[in-house]
Order: sequence, then C-alpha cells, then structure tokens
Amino acid sequence: MREVAVVGIGLTEFGEKWDSSFRELCVEAGAKAIEDAGMDGDQIQEMFVGNMSGGRFVLQEHIGALIADYSGLATNHIPSTRTEAACASGGLAFRQAVNTIASGSQDIVIAAGVEKMTDVSGGETTDALAGAADREWEGMYGVTFPGLYAMIAVDYMHKYGLTREQLAQVAVKNHYNGARNPIAQYRKEITVDAVMKSTLVADPLRLLDCSPVTDGAAAVILCSMEKAKEFTDCPIKVLASTQATDTISLHDRRDISTLDATIAAADRAFKMAKLEREDIDLVEVHDCFTIAELCAIEDMGFCKKGEAGKFTEEGETALGGKLPVNTSGGLKACGHPVGATGIKQVCEVVAQLRGEAGKRQIDGAEIGMTHNVGGTGATVVTNIFRRA
Amino acid sequence: MREVAVVGIGLTEFGEKWDSSFRELCVEAGAKAIEDAGMDGDQIQEMFVGNMSGGRFVLQEHIGALIADYSGLATNHIPSTRTEAACASGGLAFRQAVNTIASGSQDIVIAAGVEKMTDVSGGETTDALAGAADREWEGMYGVTFPGLYAMIAVDYMHKYGLTREQLAQVAVKNHYNGARNPIAQYRKEITVDAVMKSTLVADPLRLLDCSPVTDGAAAVILCSMEKAKEFTDCPIKVLASTQATDTISLHDRRDISTLDATIAAADRAFKMAKLEREDIDLVEVHDCFTIAELCAIEDMGFCKKGEAGKFTEEGETALGGKLPVNTSGGLKACGHPVGATGIKQVCEVVAQLRGEAGKRQIDGAEIGMTHNVGGTGATVVTNIFRRA
Repeated sequence: MREVAVVGIGLTEFGEKWDSSFRELCVEAGAKAIEDAGMDGDQIQEMFVGNMSGGRFVLQEHIGALIADYSGLATNHIPSTRTEAACASGGLAFRQAVNTIASGSQDIVIAAGVEKMTDVSGGETTDALAGAADREWEGMYGVTFPGLYAMIAVDYMHKYGLTREQLAQVAVKNHYNGARNPIAQYRKEITVDAVMKSTLVADPLRLLDCSPVTDGAAAVILCSMEKAKEFTDCPIKVLASTQATDTISLHDRRDISTLDATIAAADRAFKMAKLEREDIDLVEVHDCFTIAELCAIEDMGFCKKGEAGKFTEEGETALGGKLPVNTSGGLKACGHPVGATGIKQVCEVVAQLRGEAGKRQIDGAEIGMTHNVGGTGATVVTNIFRRA
Repeated sequence: MREVAVVGIGLTEFGEKWDSSFRELCVEAGAKAIEDAGMDGDQIQEMFVGNMSGGRFVLQEHIGALIADYSGLATNHIPSTRTEAACASGGLAFRQAVNTIASGSQDIVIAAGVEKMTDVSGGETTDALAGAADREWEGMYGVTFPGLYAMIAVDYMHKYGLTREQLAQVAVKNHYNGARNPIAQYRKEITVDAVMKSTLVADPLRLLDCSPVTDGAAAVILCSMEKAKEFTDCPIKVLASTQATDTISLHDRRDISTLDATIAAADRAFKMAKLEREDIDLVEVHDCFTIAELCAIEDMGFCKKGEAGKFTEEGETALGGKLPVNTSGGLKACGHPVGATGIKQVCEVVAQLRGEAGKRQIDGAEIGMTHNVGGTGATVVTNIFRRA
C-alpha cells in the first residue's frame, strides 16, 4: 500500500446559510481545497462525497454526481461516490479516498462532506436525524438523539460520579476554541453557569450541551506521497484511516456509555500508525453532545474510563493542556453539518500540523488524530496524521 | 492490484414484499450469499451496501451499520459503508468491494444492495425517485423519470427512425426471460400488442415500457483469487469494474439520447479487461425504460448508434441471439429495487457463467458484463466477468 498525503483543504463558514444552496456549499469547499492545493480541478481523478440525508433535507439523492457536475468535474467523467453512515458520512468518504490512493488505483482524489440542514422545519430535522438510529426499535418509540445521549450521560454519571459542572466544562472549552475559529458557527465564549442555566433538552443534557443544526461543507485533496511534493512543501501524511461498526441500537450494547466501535477503530489506527497514545499532539473528537467528548477521550485510550471529566476540568483538553481536544470548537461550537463533520475534523488537524491554525494553534503540533461517530456509535472512523 | 473473484451470490424474490422489512430483505440476501459461498459470516472483513433512498422510503439512514448489525457482523466491528448514486447505488457498492480486495486491504468482502419501495404511497415513491435527477432544475419543474426517459425516446425516434414496435420488442423479450427466472417480479410473457395497448405514461412510453416499483435485495461475496479456491471450484473472476459520471441534468448533455458516462465506463472496462466487444457472451444492462436498453447496447459499443432497435427486432438480444441481453428479465420484468439492481445484475451474470441459470441458461457462457445506471446517466458502473 502506498503512502497518502493531504495536500489541500477547504471549508465554508458553518452556520445557518440562508443564501447558499446545498450544491453551492459543497462546490465552495471543493474550490477552496483545489486552490489551497494549487492544482487544476482537471487533475482530480476520483471523488467521494459524505452526506447523511440529502433525501430528507433537500429532497436530493445522487449527490456524488451532482457535486461532480457542479464542480465542473463531470466533463472528465471521473467516478464520484456518495458515502453515508449518518454523522460519520464524511469520515467514510475520507477513508475511501485514502484507500483509493493507497491501492494505487488513483493518484489524486477529493473527499468532501456536505449537509444543508436548515431548509426544513425543526421537527423534520429532528426526525431526519433520528434516521441515524434504529428506526424500528428507537425512532418509532419516540427517542431522538438528545434522548439517546441523555441515557448515555445518566448511565455514565451514575457509574463514574461525573458532575454536571464537569460536563458543562466541555462546552465551555469548545466555545473558547470556537471563538478563535473564523469559520465557527458560534464564535463566542460561554460560562459553566450559562450551560447550567440553559434550557433542559433531555435530562441531564441542556441546550448548551448539544451541538447545533448547521449548514456547511468541507473538502480535502489527497494524493500519493510521491506526488505530494509537486503541490506543497508541507504535505500531511495519513498514517492510519480506520472504520468500525457496532449495533445500531443503543440498548443492544454491552455497556451504553462505552463505544466499542471507538475502541476498535482507535486500536486499529494506533496499530496501523505504529504509535502510542502519548504520541498524539491534538485530537478532534465527535462531541455531538458534551458527554460524547468524554466517552471519546476514554474509549480512544487517552484517559482511564471515568476520568475524562476530571481531565477536562483540570484543563488538560484545553488549548494549553496535555492533549488539546477539539481546537476547532468541535461540533458544539464550530457546528455540525452532519455529513461534513468528518472532513472538517481532517481540515482542522491538517491546519494545525501545518501551523496555520491562527489563534488556536498548538505550538509544534506534529501528530494529530480525528474521531468521527455515526449515530450513538454504530459507526466510528478514526484517522492519524503526521507532518511529513 | 490483486485478482478478485465472486464466490457467493444471494437474492431475495423481487416484488411487493409486504411481509418483509427493509432489513429482513437485505439480511436474507446476505445469508444466502454466505451459504452459497460455503463460508462463515465471521470470515467477512468488510461490507458495502448500496441503497438509494432509505431516508425517504423507510425513514432509515445509517444503512451500512444497520445491515452489519442485523447480519450479526457488528460483533466483529467490521467496517460497513453505504454507497449511493441513485439506481447505480448497488454498482458503487460492488466496485468499492472489488477495489478493497484488489488493493490487498481485505481478503473477503460482501457487497449488497437493497431497496424497500412499497412502504410509501405512489406519489411519495415518484417524488423520492425524482431525487435521482437534479431537484432544482428538473424535479422542481415537475419532470419525473418517465418524463425524462420519454424525452430521450422522442429524440432517439426522431433521429434514428426507431419504431414503436421495435421499442415494445425490448419489453417482450425481457418478459420472456423474466418468465424463466424464479425470483422475477413478473414471471409472465407479454406481446407487442399488449405493450402498444398499455396505458400511456409519458408519450411515447407506455406502462409496459417502464420498470416497476419493487422491493428486494441482492448480495455477492468477493475474495482474492488465491482465496477463492477455498470456497468454490468455479470462481468468477472480475476482469474490470469501472465507474463514470456525467451531468446530473439531462438538458446539460451534448446529446440527450447518448449516455457519455456509459461510453466512458464501458471503454475503461474493455481496456482494463483487455477484451473486445465480440468477446462478451451476455450482458445485463440498465433497462429502467425500454429506450434505455437500446441506448445501453449502442453506447457500450455492441451496435452502431441507431441500430439497436433492428438488432432487438431480429432477435439478436434474445436468449438464442448473438448477444443475449438481460437474461434475468432485466429491470423491466425481474423488477427494479433501485439500490439492489446493480448487485442483482452481478448475481445473474455469475449464475450464467457458472451454468446455473436454469431455463434461461446461455450455453457455454464464459464472459459476461453488467451495466448499471444512476438517474438518466449521471452515474454508470460497468463490470466484466470471466469464468476462471
């Protein structure tokens, strides 16, 4: 298998993008990635697009062809494939792109992710998102995603003595980072008190524990390591890209506050990259709810189970901490256009490893990791990157 | 790149499956494929599932994880990826599975396709299917798939003098084949007269020119050629698997009755397989409407443009003809569960090359091909197979 590098990244601003259509968002991110790589669009040989629910949100399927067409890449008849695994759809697109180059079947591939969530009403959005869970055994009984993650939080707090304040600290830290990210949906800091007083959504989760509904897109250009030097002096090498599956229903898990797919994907990634946990300088994890960030840190092996709350409270996941987590602001503050999130995480880690992360830059970052979850953990994709 | 073989196939019956759920259909096809391969499910290392619109038809996304889970494969946390390109979703799943083995990243992979279309009303089905076209520039103006293919048919008839009777002959031939396929939705023969007198849907296309709305699933198991001998005495080698993209809107094409993506995919496939058109013993093409079969035969290079009507009328595409086309009954008579079709085509060609196609067997078939289209030709996947 050949070595693969990221040579271009592109992001739209995340938020309620009333003035941009689904296709415009994705084309904007792709054009920025192509410009960033300093190449011609014609050099791209294959495309993968992660999108969760275009069918429900914008009544559009066949998204690979749509985006290839509106990007001007259909003229070369390149293959373009949509991948979907709910909120891990972008992660899947990235992994397929990596494998396509690693195998030698193509040299230059673009992986994008896009979601336009605000074109439908709130109830429709919530119901579409419930399609990420088991419709017959979860959705039909009225449980939506805040409810599912609330059950995880209740179980976790009961087992490990996590405090409500520690949980709030995750959101506070991510908003601090988001305030330093020019594309973030929420560029303002919040306090523990604000989280504790925000509207109760699903006990114990409050409004400021939840990632928002977001429009946005992200794209990255990958190529073989040999070719990378043609485009950049600072290629970011993909050391590992792994994916794991678990039961789709939360109630079928052996332990609802441990994500076995995260454990499996991360173990495979560290093995593939031949690295230890302490080698990682920063990580973007899937904090769709505050509790999810704590589970992620532990299940990836950065903390013992039950200790991530204290680790966070002590500032170890903040910008100056031992392991900065979600420097982008995470899903919480940067926003969560579900199909785009897995690619946005890659963009953030690449920006950090290049030293281009501005006010949220981690000094001397050399190795970074991403963690992208579909549903309550039925799909997990993890990636490890190194400055080459 | 390593050689890849198909070692197991599985199909549900196609039709209106009121007694089976979406997940049950896919698990049934997968279990049959595993049984056919004579392996344990635990030996499968990765899964790809083609599905067009689970979000609209059964309110379910995250289909890769759902199917892995209900197949009992989530316990090993194998990666499972849903691919989507409208009616070519199954074709994409197959190609990704081939590439995953060819690259050496996995040894044994399952590719499945599934669609459950009859759980919603007819209007909702038509609108969901319109998501395969350009929602903003086609769907919003009221054009649905029969309308789009009717425009192709009008243009084709005007240019090449195709007769209405020749067009009807495609449906008659496919029903003849479908009557000999135990899983087909319509196992009965029809006449040219019946097609000509059937309800007008979108001039010149009549009801019996159109593929039906279908529930069904299909699965195939692929492995490296070295490993194939462990499972079967008759592995079917994948000589080529190619994919091409075109504009999503029909009106943006240089010629609406020529599918450039078919030309591109087929040219790449013949080059990859190092074969000529005359080497092909049978082909399954994407006859979502009768006119589509004629365009496919020509654009793949089996006939000159404008001559497929005569070729069909003369019986050359029938079971005993020069190039049997759609021995399964095609989308027209076998049925068209959109996400499953690309995999069903592979199952049919594999059955033929193994000599297991019963009353529709082509004597001595050694090399077969499949052609799977998304939308009006924005995505095309072609595959070439040889009895090893």
